[in-house]
Amino acid sequence: MRMYDIIEKKKRGISLSKAEIEYFVRGATDGSIPDYQISALMMAIFFKGMDPEETYELTMAMAASGDMLDLSAIEGIKVDKHSTGGVGDKTTFVIAPMIAALGLPFAKMSGRGLGHTGGTIDKLEAFPGFRTSISETKFFDNVARHKISVVGQTKNLAPCDKKLYALRDATATVDQISLIASSIMSKKLASGADAIVLDVKVGSGAFMKTKEEARKLAETMVNIGNAAGRKVTAVLTDMDEPLGYAVGNTLEVIEAIDALRGEGPKDLMEVVYALGCQLALLSGVAHTRDEALEKLNRVIDDGSAYDKFCEFIRIQNGNPEDVPRMRELLHVSDVEEIFAESDGYVSKINAEMIGHASMVLGGGRAAKEDSIDLNVGVVLHKKVGDSIISGESIATIYGNDPKKVMVAKEEVLSAYSFTKNKVDRPAKILEIIGER
Amino acid sequence: MRMYDIIEKKKRGISLSKAEIEYFVRGATDGSIPDYQISALMMAIFFKGMDPEETYELTMAMAASGDMLDLSAIEGIKVDKHSTGGVGDKTTFVIAPMIAALGLPFAKMSGRGLGHTGGTIDKLEAFPGFRTSISETKFFDNVARHKISVVGQTKNLAPCDKKLYALRDATATVDQISLIASSIMSKKLASGADAIVLDVKVGSGAFMKTKEEARKLAETMVNIGNAAGRKVTAVLTDMDEPLGYAVGNTLEVIEAIDALRGEGPKDLMEVVYALGCQLALLSGVAHTRDEALEKLNRVIDDGSAYDKFCEFIRIQNGNPEDVPRMRELLHVSDVEEIFAESDGYVSKINAEMIGHASMVLGGGRAAKEDSIDLNVGVVLHKKVGDSIISGESIATIYGNDPKKVMVAKEEVLSAYSFTKNKVDRPAKILEIIGER
Repeated sequence: MRMYDIIEKKKRGISLSKAEIEYFVRGATDGSIPDYQISALMMAIFFKGMDPEETYELTMAMAASGDMLDLSAIEGIKVDKHSTGGVGDKTTFVIAPMIAALGLPFAKMSGRGLGHTGGTIDKLEAFPGFRTSISETKFFDNVARHKISVVGQTKNLAPCDKKLYALRDATATVDQISLIASSIMSKKLASGADAIVLDVKVGSGAFMKTKEEARKLAETMVNIGNAAGRKVTAVLTDMDEPLGYAVGNTLEVIEAIDALRGEGPKDLMEVVYALGCQLALLSGVAHTRDEALEKLNRVIDDGSAYDKFCEFIRIQNGNPEDVPRMRELLHVSDVEEIFAESDGYVSKINAEMIGHASMVLGGGRAAKEDSIDLNVGVVLHKKVGDSIISGESIATIYGNDPKKVMVAKEEVLSAYSFTKNKVDRPAKILEIIGER
Repeated sequence: MRMYDIIEKKKRGISLSKAEIEYFVRGATDGSIPDYQISALMMAIFFKGMDPEETYELTMAMAASGDMLDLSAIEGIKVDKHSTGGVGDKTTFVIAPMIAALGLPFAKMSGRGLGHTGGTIDKLEAFPGFRTSISETKFFDNVARHKISVVGQTKNLAPCDKKLYALRDATATVDQISLIASSIMSKKLASGADAIVLDVKVGSGAFMKTKEEARKLAETMVNIGNAAGRKVTAVLTDMDEPLGYAVGNTLEVIEAIDALRGEGPKDLMEVVYALGCQLALLSGVAHTRDEALEKLNRVIDDGSAYDKFCEFIRIQNGNPEDVPRMRELLHVSDVEEIFAESDGYVSKINAEMIGHASMVLGGGRAAKEDSIDLNVGVVLHKKVGDSIISGESIATIYGNDPKKVMVAKEEVLSAYSFTKNKVDRPAKILEIIGER
């Protein structure tokens, strides 16, 4: 077999066989296939696509290119949740303890990631002492005994995906549905969960700008997961404006804690309940949406989800007493309000610009080696559909550098659009793919 | 400027600017742009193409990526001839001395090349002592005083093309018209000739399998040349069967010498006259086809083209006395005839298979570092349209290894197709693009 022939075949739009895909993945992983051939194939795939079988085989081969976590020793249906990424997305911190409180083992591997804020792992470090680089044994033990654990991705999780992603990122071939789906799903499959709910974000603050693209990605991922014998549902959720009010690392964790106390923003809770509901249905802990919602409501109302979160912080070396006092742990030198200049309604908030403001403040990484400031960020006070009165604060900037705060302030203000007429609040749940 | 954005732009089908193309060519030449980005761009160009302006700018930038020969110190219109490559193509050895005998300075840089036989440079080495690695001064001097010289390509001729070609060859992006045209024309422009005739081969033994593709390539090259201020005409010639009878290095030179003596095969002479005619018209040495043909006929008839060839061999260190006795210089241990098995007509000769037989015998290179045997090859006795009688020889194999000869024999025989009905001889000249 020759890589040249594989490129030529794909270039002509002929489907690649399982053997050809495995040959390619093996060579890309061990370095025997040069980067220039890999990038040429990625570009050919951009133009010619991959059919469902090819996409499935690519995902399986990438998942198997490194360590595959076997969670079968842990009793019960192990669940996981993945988001394609958006601005102000703190759902994991709310859903994970809710699901664990229902008795389902929540096992998540997560990354640091690039973007407007850090990844799940970064945000958890808002808790002094919290450790995500725990051993596999400890991770298994946490999931088995406490039904919840979040661990940093091991270096050897789907190494082929790391290789391909870096090349795609440098050669303008990131935006291809089969390649995105296989990248996400290879890591999910290697992470070992039985039931996975995918939060596919749509809108100005998401990678998928249209519902059509998002639906295609969701369907592709659900099909891969099902073919691999996992239970997978995808929820398309709105990311045209940020989710909830807080954008920034510690600020988002604070909002998540409020949510666990029953004081979460309406839009955030809509997404949390939708995703949680699907996890409850997939795992069989509930048989109808109503039953699932009732159970999810109960773990919030009786405080058991909040308690589970505190337990989670404790077992990964954090101090559970920090949970109720997170606001005190926020250290910023510069807090600036943004005031409304006239009466009216918020008609639009460009999520990408709000995210960028958070990144400018130092809350996100542009490159892997950048350090981030967990304290900084933006808290919105007005969302789309809210009325405003001239002079009232629409958002607060939390920063540690006056110059950056000025830039962020400008950007947050320009992210807002206003109108004189009443505006409906946008629906958060757009569609559910693969519901059981 | 970033290479990423250039790839993204081309991927979306947006034309690249002159500045972007120059940035890319500079980076590809000096190595600052990594191979994986170059190959991704090549694949995007394969799918999205390049418009005439882009193709021109790419060619100019590649030509300027290394040394550009300035032949202006030599008086007269310097002419050159290029073939896209075929089986049994020995036209250069006939045309060059004919043109020089007409008083036009023929200045050619040539390569060794891969394929069924060696390149022009290899074939000239059939003359013991002949040197193609001569200095620029010597090359200029030969062209100025003797009107003829052929020199090996300098290492620094269009180095960007070398880089791109090697990558395209490894990533299945060779077959793109703009990339083929810019590769050929960048070297032609850097070689400095004022008037260039392009022999674009079409058929089973050529890179371009259809007349439509060949026409498109020819038009693209003529347009580039004209935009660069050179006089360029392209002749589409048939390469469905080999050109002439001889395929192999020394064997082809022998046939060319016969042609210079007025004993050339009909199809070879058709191509020679068509190309020579265009060079005569381009350079203004003739004003009509009839005038050109008459002049070309005269240099054959009066022996001046043959004498010029002998002079050419002499000035580049060969022995002109070898010219009439080339047959004696052929050293083979194994000569095998292929006999017709029934009466009829030759309906088809697969040129690619005949070329492959020559390569199998050791007459061509599969890889750059391979050495070649100048003696071996195939001489056909029957061409398409010829009648055959059972038992007569249709071809002779010249080899130096009985095993290879057996393989070649098989292949030559299978290259032939026969029929009971009379077959017309195929036309050799299919079309002329850009005639003055």
